[in-house]
Amino acid sequence: MKKVAIIMGSDSDLPVVEKAINTLAEFEVPYEVHVYSAHRTPEESKEFSQNAAKNGFGVIIAAAGMAAHLAGAIAANTLLPVIGIPVKAAAFDGMDALLSTVMMPPGIPVATVGVNGAQNAALLAIQILAVEDASLSEKLANQRKTGYEKVLEKNKNIEEKYNN
Amino acid sequence: MKKVAIIMGSDSDLPVVEKAINTLAEFEVPYEVHVYSAHRTPEESKEFSQNAAKNGFGVIIAAAGMAAHLAGAIAANTLLPVIGIPVKAAAFDGMDALLSTVMMPPGIPVATVGVNGAQNAALLAIQILAVEDASLSEKLANQRKTGYEKVLEKNKNIEEKYNN
Amino acid sequence: MKKVAIIMGSDSDLPVVEKAINTLAEFEVPYEVHVYSAHRTPEESKEFSQNAAKNGFGVIIAAAGMAAHLAGAIAANTLLPVIGIPVKAAAFDGMDALLSTVMMPPGIPVATVGVNGAQNAALLAIQILAVEDASLSEKLANQRKTGYEKVLEKNKNIEEKYNN
Amino acid sequence: MKKVAIIMGSDSDLPVVEKAINTLAEFEVPYEVHVYSAHRTPEESKEFSQNAAKNGFGVIIAAAGMAAHLAGAIAANTLLPVIGIPVKAAAFDGMDALLSTVMMPPGIPVATVGVNGAQNAALLAIQILAVEDASLSEKLANQRKTGYEKVLEKNKNIEEKYNN
Amino acid sequence: MKKVAIIMGSDSDLPVVEKAINTLAEFEVPYEVHVYSAHRTPEESKEFSQNAAKNGFGVIIAAAGMAAHLAGAIAANTLLPVIGIPVKAAAFDGMDALLSTVMMPPGIPVATVGVNGAQNAALLAIQILAVEDASLSEKLANQRKTGYEKVLEKNKNIEEKYNN
Amino acid sequence: MKKVAIIMGSDSDLPVVEKAINTLAEFEVPYEVHVYSAHRTPEESKEFSQNAAKNGFGVIIAAAGMAAHLAGAIAANTLLPVIGIPVKAAAFDGMDALLSTVMMPPGIPVATVGVNGAQNAALLAIQILAVEDASLSEKLANQRKTGYEKVLEKNKNIEEKYNN
Amino acid sequence: MKKVAIIMGSDSDLPVVEKAINTLAEFEVPYEVHVYSAHRTPEESKEFSQNAAKNGFGVIIAAAGMAAHLAGAIAANTLLPVIGIPVKAAAFDGMDALLSTVMMPPGIPVATVGVNGAQNAALLAIQILAVEDASLSEKLANQRKTGYEKVLEKNKNIEEKYNN
Amino acid sequence: MKKVAIIMGSDSDLPVVEKAINTLAEFEVPYEVHVYSAHRTPEESKEFSQNAAKNGFGVIIAAAGMAAHLAGAIAANTLLPVIGIPVKAAAFDGMDALLSTVMMPPGIPVATVGVNGAQNAALLAIQILAVEDASLSEKLANQRKTGYEKVLEKNKNIEEKYNN
Repeated sequence: MKKVAIIMGSDSDLPVVEKAINTLAEFEVPYEVHVYSAHRTPEESKEFSQNAAKNGFGVIIAAAGMAAHLAGAIAANTLLPVIGIPVKAAAFDGMDALLSTVMMPPGIPVATVGVNGAQNAALLAIQILAVEDASLSEKLANQRKTGYEKVLEKNKNIEEKYNN
Repeated sequence: MKKVAIIMGSDSDLPVVEKAINTLAEFEVPYEVHVYSAHRTPEESKEFSQNAAKNGFGVIIAAAGMAAHLAGAIAANTLLPVIGIPVKAAAFDGMDALLSTVMMPPGIPVATVGVNGAQNAALLAIQILAVEDASLSEKLANQRKTGYEKVLEKNKNIEEKYNN
Repeated sequence: MKKVAIIMGSDSDLPVVEKAINTLAEFEVPYEVHVYSAHRTPEESKEFSQNAAKNGFGVIIAAAGMAAHLAGAIAANTLLPVIGIPVKAAAFDGMDALLSTVMMPPGIPVATVGVNGAQNAALLAIQILAVEDASLSEKLANQRKTGYEKVLEKNKNIEEKYNN
Repeated sequence: MKKVAIIMGSDSDLPVVEKAINTLAEFEVPYEVHVYSAHRTPEESKEFSQNAAKNGFGVIIAAAGMAAHLAGAIAANTLLPVIGIPVKAAAFDGMDALLSTVMMPPGIPVATVGVNGAQNAALLAIQILAVEDASLSEKLANQRKTGYEKVLEKNKNIEEKYNN
Repeated sequence: MKKVAIIMGSDSDLPVVEKAINTLAEFEVPYEVHVYSAHRTPEESKEFSQNAAKNGFGVIIAAAGMAAHLAGAIAANTLLPVIGIPVKAAAFDGMDALLSTVMMPPGIPVATVGVNGAQNAALLAIQILAVEDASLSEKLANQRKTGYEKVLEKNKNIEEKYNN
Repeated sequence: MKKVAIIMGSDSDLPVVEKAINTLAEFEVPYEVHVYSAHRTPEESKEFSQNAAKNGFGVIIAAAGMAAHLAGAIAANTLLPVIGIPVKAAAFDGMDALLSTVMMPPGIPVATVGVNGAQNAALLAIQILAVEDASLSEKLANQRKTGYEKVLEKNKNIEEKYNN
Repeated sequence: MKKVAIIMGSDSDLPVVEKAINTLAEFEVPYEVHVYSAHRTPEESKEFSQNAAKNGFGVIIAAAGMAAHLAGAIAANTLLPVIGIPVKAAAFDGMDALLSTVMMPPGIPVATVGVNGAQNAALLAIQILAVEDASLSEKLANQRKTGYEKVLEKNKNIEEKYNN
Repeated sequence: MKKVAIIMGSDSDLPVVEKAINTLAEFEVPYEVHVYSAHRTPEESKEFSQNAAKNGFGVIIAAAGMAAHLAGAIAANTLLPVIGIPVKAAAFDGMDALLSTVMMPPGIPVATVGVNGAQNAALLAIQILAVEDASLSEKLANQRKTGYEKVLEKNKNIEEKYNN
């Protein structure tokens, strides 16, 4: 199976990114985690991106805050789908990171998820890999069923509490 | 090859969506275009989404404006990757559509592109299909090379005009 | 008397929603509380909405955060008035939920109250039921009189403290 | 049948408000239209609001732009449900009117629709009156069916154009 | 000397408003403090405003949060200058209150100060009264001189700490 | 009678400012109009401000766009009440000018009106002068009565058109 | 004298950038103009940046719209001061470009000017070169004097028109 | 070597500004720190600015919050490059300070860094001085190398933790 790369712009993004790591682990999707900064280690970031496809990656997830250039910088150096996680940092509730990630110019898309949406980033990566992988798709179906059942359970608890 | 579905919430979104259609056509990726409204034809929207995988689709692109629920509503009914195009409509420069599309709750991701970013939505769909399709990946490489050369050409023109 | 339904997208919305429950209880308006997610239990959400009128409901209140599609998704499946409570969640101070709830396309209105405005949502539901219910209208008049007197009392306290 | 009042803060709001008038006329719901300003004719605005219930009104729709106090000022003087239409005026794309209308303090709700959402305001008023009026509810069902069929028609046209 | 009225929409605004009270007290400008709500005690609010001039007031300060209609509602009922303090409340960092206070329609101005800017509201009221009161103007000059000297003192401390 | 000064940061603000000039002329309040830039003619701006009181001015109106420092810079150099008009310029719909004008630090208030609110700025200046000038106050009462009657007239027209 | 580089992300930015070119030409500061895209020609952009200092440049100006990564990407590859011009493009009035340009992470500053502020970008570049160049500083003084005199002239015209 | 001036609008900005002081100290760039308020000590602020060049300064850094006029006011009185630090203060997450600092009118640029971006302000000042100072440029290269190595180190730690 193709691997998923999780790149964060700084290790301070780890608390957000961990949900993505855990989700990939849970789905037994192979992954690698790296810290590459679009601005402080641009060469490493570029090298990784340019070689990601031939190194067996299928999707790249990039998380960054503030003027979050990381996802776009990676996308400029690979043809793989790149998923951007805008991280809520010092100001503006993550709006700076959201706009820096999502408003990409024509030609270089970034698949952006919500602010701090690391779990969804991992699920999206899995969905992408599952397009041609029926067993992975089945795992997604199971996970969604679990999510569905959790809401049913919560509903039952609330109904019992309030609707007697 | 798996097909790409392009769903728009209203035919008034067509001028935006056309760039996605053209890009898919240019790449010779099979596609279908539909108008399904999350609110006015919810059943058709759901049916399509639930059967998309078995009907040969690999990716779904959904475009909507204002309180843009379409991409999320589709994502709730399929395990395929769903790409959301926030469409700039009556107010707020598309910020309403962007937030309604990208801020999805955990469990149901939408791969969001920029406001009116239909071309990027199509390219992202192609990137997703290309993960397991080397010839499609090659087409992406060619297209990116063309984009690269266009900028070089523009640079040359500007340099000739200003730097002699 | 027709019942009021209170639907929340997640049980994490309960602390906000409780004020709506308490207000309805205080007015002795019959109500039911449920957890239905527009994205994780879309079918349950739809079923409830489609049957709400025939099941004796007169108004539906829906509370959700982030890309808050719940109120709109319910409104798409019922002719009853639907009241939306945008819930302040992870980012943007509830602006994402407000825009996702209020900016509905023509044809499917959602009666939106302020961010976390659960008490007002309940009062609005009661006002709607009171249009044809004089005794309920009287209760509203009493409650408003109480609110009026509370402000007078607060004014008196402030005046005594500062205006001697 | 109870009447619907449509109050606008200025006759410059008429182009927006006309859609509400037309919708009510189409549904044969009796209505009255007035220009009352929260700031320039506060007394007339108050008198109207205080007497609206006894004068046979069931719902009041209020449209205003900028620091849009009209809906809230009316709501403070009636127990009827009040629907607020934030009107897009000189600046901020209607955000000023939206926040001034929707962020009401506890105790005095305003049922807010989207910026310039006059048609939805009228439909919401009709939904409110239809809670106890089966024939009006049937008209709503018909109108929704028409909306549904229009989307199907549009879909058919798009499908024919693009999916052969 | 004419009095200054300080009106707050709720006694929860008192922590903000206290700086205005203290500033007026410090300048020995006569004042009264009241709690009048634009929405819950509209009649009291109106009565006070309509009689303020004849009751010896020269300026009215109004503080309110959320959809802050209070200053505008008072301004609609008096010819006295009305100063609005937008109060930071439940959401949007006070932007809702700022826009609701400052974006008044032509004909009814509100002199708006910054979010929670109670001290500046009091100083502005004093400046207004000082236009025709030389001794009050002198007090303002003294206070500004004190502010000036405080900055000089702070500068001296910082310079000693860092610039040796 | 004390004069009103109208200062604009650039003559490009004249189309906005003209409403203030016309309103003062209409009320026969003496005024002067100047172009002083906080950044390009800071000394002239300061000189004018420091001497405004002794030169017979009672109020200063300052209009500027973008990073609108003018009103604050004037306020720092006078004890007179300063009214700021945020002018809508190249970007952000005037939000930059509004925040630059209204969010003044403690000690130096600016009485801010709405974006492009030049008429209200003039009316506020007149209200300030009218605190100690009964005949000016009477003119304000007349003007407000005219505004009131205009709304009544508009209401009559709308009522005749729609309510027969 | 060191040269100034003007880099634009796309030749569609030329109408904005031209003011920078004209200003540099007017000051007889040597400059070069290039089109390099952070995403479409990242290698050219990097090469230019890494060699800029040794190629005789003293300052780099970078103009880009949307998720404007160009200035930051250049700054990551040079130690020269980099000036960013956020360009107003398809949506959000340039706020996306502003936040993408100015909110740089610690370590890699971008000297950001206002949206479309190309003239100021050029002046800032000249100020930087003038720190060690007295004759250039004199030119700046002359230009500022001209700006000053223009305002005086405009003031004179306005005064003659309105203050007789 | 030319000195760097660090001016803060209030000593409450010191916690933010300290990072700039420390960075300059670390680079052994001579600096002075002052508290000058654009509004409370405008004369001292102006005097300092007008004499900064002749007093041996090469760059001025100005930090202020709210309606942050300080950087612009300084820039109006010097030809030196002025760097503005928008400080996050009472409301709006620093957006008020950002817009007040960056949106300068043509003719008077302010080199704006991110909200609370004091370290970057200092680095930018050093970059400016380093344009003509090879040894300072070398220090910048070393510092950037250290930043680069820190990211490599963090990457190594993360890789060891997650990628075995």
